[in-house]
Amino acid sequence: MNDPAGLPGPNSPIDYHAPTAWLLGTGEDADVVMSSRARLARNIAGFPFVNSASRDDRRHALAVSRQRIMDARLTKKLAWIELHETNHAVRTLLVERHLISRQHAKGKLNRTTGGVDEPRAVAVGTPDEALSIMVNEEDHLRIQLIGSGLCLNDLLRRIDDVDDRIEAGIDYAFSPRFGYLTACPTNVGTGIRFGVMLHLPALKLTGDIEKVKRAAGGMSLAVRGFYGEGSDASADLYQISNQTTLGKSEAAILRELTGEVLPAVIGYERSARQKLLEHRSEVIEDKVHRAIGVLTHARLLSTEEAMDHLSMIRLGIVAGLMPELEQQPINHLLLMVQPGHLQMLCGRVLSQGERRIERAKLVRERLAGVAGS
Amino acid sequence: MNDPAGLPGPNSPIDYHAPTAWLLGTGEDADVVMSSRARLARNIAGFPFVNSASRDDRRHALAVSRQRIMDARLTKKLAWIELHETNHAVRTLLVERHLISRQHAKGKLNRTTGGVDEPRAVAVGTPDEALSIMVNEEDHLRIQLIGSGLCLNDLLRRIDDVDDRIEAGIDYAFSPRFGYLTACPTNVGTGIRFGVMLHLPALKLTGDIEKVKRAAGGMSLAVRGFYGEGSDASADLYQISNQTTLGKSEAAILRELTGEVLPAVIGYERSARQKLLEHRSEVIEDKVHRAIGVLTHARLLSTEEAMDHLSMIRLGIVAGLMPELEQQPINHLLLMVQPGHLQMLCGRVLSQGERRIERAKLVRERLAGVAGS
Repeated sequence: MNDPAGLPGPNSPIDYHAPTAWLLGTGEDADVVMSSRARLARNIAGFPFVNSASRDDRRHALAVSRQRIMDARLTKKLAWIELHETNHAVRTLLVERHLISRQHAKGKLNRTTGGVDEPRAVAVGTPDEALSIMVNEEDHLRIQLIGSGLCLNDLLRRIDDVDDRIEAGIDYAFSPRFGYLTACPTNVGTGIRFGVMLHLPALKLTGDIEKVKRAAGGMSLAVRGFYGEGSDASADLYQISNQTTLGKSEAAILRELTGEVLPAVIGYERSARQKLLEHRSEVIEDKVHRAIGVLTHARLLSTEEAMDHLSMIRLGIVAGLMPELEQQPINHLLLMVQPGHLQMLCGRVLSQGERRIERAKLVRERLAGVAGS
Repeated sequence: MNDPAGLPGPNSPIDYHAPTAWLLGTGEDADVVMSSRARLARNIAGFPFVNSASRDDRRHALAVSRQRIMDARLTKKLAWIELHETNHAVRTLLVERHLISRQHAKGKLNRTTGGVDEPRAVAVGTPDEALSIMVNEEDHLRIQLIGSGLCLNDLLRRIDDVDDRIEAGIDYAFSPRFGYLTACPTNVGTGIRFGVMLHLPALKLTGDIEKVKRAAGGMSLAVRGFYGEGSDASADLYQISNQTTLGKSEAAILRELTGEVLPAVIGYERSARQKLLEHRSEVIEDKVHRAIGVLTHARLLSTEEAMDHLSMIRLGIVAGLMPELEQQPINHLLLMVQPGHLQMLCGRVLSQGERRIERAKLVRERLAGVAGS
C-alpha cells in the first residue's frame, strides 16, 4: 500500500533505496563506460499495435503478456507493477531508475487511483533490476537488460535467452521478409537496440565532445543525455545507441557499435584525460577538489549542479586523484539526487525550493567522512 | 638587506607578516566599517610643489622633511624607507598595506638599485602601521592615520596632534585666505580627507549598492574600491571619502560624512542583512558555506575570487552564522592573498599561474582546522 504522500511503502517489491545494477561502477572499461543496455521490441501476433488498439484489445494484450512473462521463469524474482495502480511518485522513481520510459509513465490519469488510466505495466527482475519488460508501451513488449560497464555481448546472449523463453509460449508478430514487426519502422527487423552510457568529462572539458557527436551522427548512431531523447547530458553522461535495425542481424548491429565507434570514443576520452592530467593537472585537481568542497558545504543544490560536481568527483576517482573514494557511492548519488528519489528518501512531497535544501543536506551527509579535503 | 628575489629580509623595519591596524576587525560598527582613515596634505613653505620642482629641490625637501619627521617624536618607533632603496617587491607590499599610494610606488627606476629613481620616501609608525607619511608624493607631505572600525573623531584628534608636532619645527605653505596650499585644488583649505572602508555584501546582493553610489555622488562623496581610485570593489569593500576641502572646516567635513551619510549607509547594510537572513536565510547560508567549501578545497585561486569568498565568510561571521570563526584572521587573509604578500610568504617571485596555486594552498592551510563544514 502507498502512504499518503504517494511514496512506496515497506512492502514495495522494488527497493528504491538500493542502487541499480547499472550504478555499480564495475565491469569492463568502467572508467569510461557507466553501463550497457540491450532492448528488444516485440508484439503479440493477432493483436493490433498499441497505438491503434482499443482499450479492450490493450487490456487483453496486457493479460496475455502478464501470464506469459510470469510463466517464462525469466529471473528468480519478478515484480509486476501495473501502472494504473501506481501514483506519480512511484512512476517518477521507475523513470529515474531507467525501468520505464517517460512516455510509459505519462497518460490520462484515473481520478480515483491516481494511476495511469491505461492498461500498462512493467515487470522488473529483482533485486538487481537488470531485466525490465514494459508492457503496452509503444510495442506490446519492450524487453530491456542493463548491466554495469561494457557488457553488450553478454547482454545480447542474455536477452536472446529471455526472448526465447517468452516466445516459447506465445506467437510474436513476425514477417518472413522484414523480421519482427514493430510499431515504429526504425525497430522493424531484429527489433534490437544497443546502447551504452559513457562518462565523457574530459572530452567535454576539451570541447572535443562535439566531434564525437558529429562522428556518431554520421554513422547513424544517436547521442543522447542521461535521461534519453531530448534530455541534456547531465554529469557529462552520454548515451550512444544504434538508430535502425531493419535488414541487419543482431551481430552486425553489435559489431557496428563495438567494432569501431565505441573503442574509438573510449580511447579519445582516455587520451583526453591523460593529456589533461599531464599538461593541466592543476586545472583537473582544482575542479575535482572544488566539486568535493561545494558538495560538502553547499546548503542549496539543483539536480543539475549536483550531477555536474558528482561527474567531476567520478573523474577524480577513475583518474586516481582520490584514492580514498570509490566509484559506486558516487554513482549511487547520481540517482539519489533526482527529484523522485530525493522525495522518497525524505518521506514526503517537496516543493522545488525544499528539494534544493534537502538535496544539499543529503549530499553533505552521504559525503561526510567519505571525502576529505 | 634585500634577498635576491627582492623580498624584505629579517631586518626589515616593517613586519610584513603581521596584520595592519586596519585589519583587526575591532572598534565601533566593525560589523560594517572595516577601517577609518584621515589624511592631511601639507607642503613646506619656500619649496616648489613636487610636480614643478627640480630634482635638487625635491632632494632638499626630502632631507628637510626627514629631519623634521624624525625630530617630532610622532610615535615610539618610526621606520624611514627611501623608495630609491626599495625594489618592486617591497613597494608592492607597501601599496598592498595601504602605506603608500600606487602613484608613489611608480616612476623611473634606477638601473643599479632597482629603486624608484626619485627622491621619495615613506615614514611608517611601527608596529601598528597606523601612521604613515609619504614624502614627495603629490604634496611634500601626505600624513595618514588609519584605524579599525569607525573612529574618525579619534583619528582627527590624533592627526591634528601629528600635524602640530611637525608644524612646530617647520613652516607649511599656507594662505590666510585659502588655508593650506596643496598641489591639487581639491585639497586646498584644511587639506584633510576622511575615508571609511565599508563592507557592504548585503547591499551588493540586493543590488541596492548602486543607490548608495548615486546618493554618495550627489553629496560630493567618492565611492571607490579596496585599492582606491579606479580599483574594483573586491570583497564587497567600498571606500567612501569626502571630495573637497576648500572653504570648509575639518569639523564640518567630518560632520558631512558622519552626521548623515555614514549612519545611513551602515543602517541600509544592516537592514539588508537582516532582511536577507529573515527571508532568504538559506541563500545566505548557502553562499557562506560554499565560500568555506571552495576556499578549503580549491587548488587554483585568483585574488579576486579569494577576496569574494572571504567577503562572504566575513558576512557569515558578523551575521552570527559561524560562531567558531573570528573576523581578524579572515581580514588578515584579505591582505595575504594579494600578489606581493603571497610572494613574500613564499619567499620568491611567482608567475601568475604559480600565484594561483600558492594562493589556494595558503588559504587552505590558514583555514584548515579553523573552518568546519
